[in-house]
Amino acid sequence: MTLREDGPTVTEPEYADWRTFEALSLTPILEQALDLFNENGYHGTTVRQIARRVGVTVPALYYHHESKEAILVALFELQMRELNDRAEAAACDAGADDVVAQFSNVVEAIVLYMTHRVRHVCLDTELRHVSADSRSRYAATRKRLELMVIDLVTEGVATGEFHATHVAETARALLGMCQSIPRWYQSGGALTPDQVAARYVDIALHTVGGSAARARLTSFWTP
Amino acid sequence: MTLREDGPTVTEPEYADWRTFEALSLTPILEQALDLFNENGYHGTTVRQIARRVGVTVPALYYHHESKEAILVALFELQMRELNDRAEAAACDAGADDVVAQFSNVVEAIVLYMTHRVRHVCLDTELRHVSADSRSRYAATRKRLELMVIDLVTEGVATGEFHATHVAETARALLGMCQSIPRWYQSGGALTPDQVAARYVDIALHTVGGSAARARLTSFWTP
Repeated sequence: MTLREDGPTVTEPEYADWRTFEALSLTPILEQALDLFNENGYHGTTVRQIARRVGVTVPALYYHHESKEAILVALFELQMRELNDRAEAAACDAGADDVVAQFSNVVEAIVLYMTHRVRHVCLDTELRHVSADSRSRYAATRKRLELMVIDLVTEGVATGEFHATHVAETARALLGMCQSIPRWYQSGGALTPDQVAARYVDIALHTVGGSAARARLTSFWTP
Repeated sequence: MTLREDGPTVTEPEYADWRTFEALSLTPILEQALDLFNENGYHGTTVRQIARRVGVTVPALYYHHESKEAILVALFELQMRELNDRAEAAACDAGADDVVAQFSNVVEAIVLYMTHRVRHVCLDTELRHVSADSRSRYAATRKRLELMVIDLVTEGVATGEFHATHVAETARALLGMCQSIPRWYQSGGALTPDQVAARYVDIALHTVGGSAARARLTSFWTP
């Protein structure tokens, strides 16, 4: 994935294989900003520090991004775009008629993202520091994923595969459990991303009351 | 709840009524630091700013807390102490023999905490900025809650009330879904803390495969 240094957002991608994660090739500015935001927080990072790490002057940096907030927002957009695209590719990959497989694939894609892109996901906590305007744009992109999960749970309930009393809150709870993975997940730790994903698919199927569906899935796939 | 200004931690409490949340009376230093950390992040806040808001000199502030990190850690400890105490009171309140009621009460207590103490919970994201030493002490306190949930799920599985394939990950997922509530919860929004708690108890019972238990509970208690 290549970024143009002169734009805040990213073009592409085709996640033919949504299970494969290559290192992202960010622009030097985004790369260094991501590191610094992770190390020192958004407020603890100055535009001057980012410029120094990149090896450019402050005016050169402002030529590409109008503000520190614009850099953070560019990183958020990159994150949500990749996550949404992977989740959508995962859903498509499951075929049109099997809501259980679609749901399982989407959960798997989200968990793989959370375990492979920890540096990006951790940025999420800085969201409350951006302006209301930027936040509302980001919130809209983020809502796409929530709506995808709501749709899948709704459909599963309609077909009788799932049993959820509160669909919207269940979807939020599912996203919340996945988004919390970076709190405890350690790259190189006891569980691989694939193992975490398999266990969370199982837990998520419990959460949507899909135990019969779960039994069917686990017959050919052992978490 | 009263804090002594000269100590980083807090004494007490007796959560006879773990469902009731009064405003915390923090010391002026902790109160102002909590606000500033929420507004500007940990790294974006200076000891000087805290002292100015409190109306004391910087040396006076250092007399009470040895560093900015010590203030953050004091706030973390306060948070985890209250959360643990409420969760334990909630479990006790359910009686010794009913693991489903204990589990439901604990989830309710956690969700009530997340919705009533949003300012405190948001601080959680600053945890990665504290030193490894402070973090490991905080992690131990935090682990207490995780172990409580693991125990309850384990016991529920043993009695046949719950069905969970991966107990430890299920407990983490449950905590994750609760800890994510401040991402979307708005005080004064569509749902009251009690309503959020009731819905999350229902979702959590789904997650631990406790649908039979859920039916029993909801017969006398409608989320």
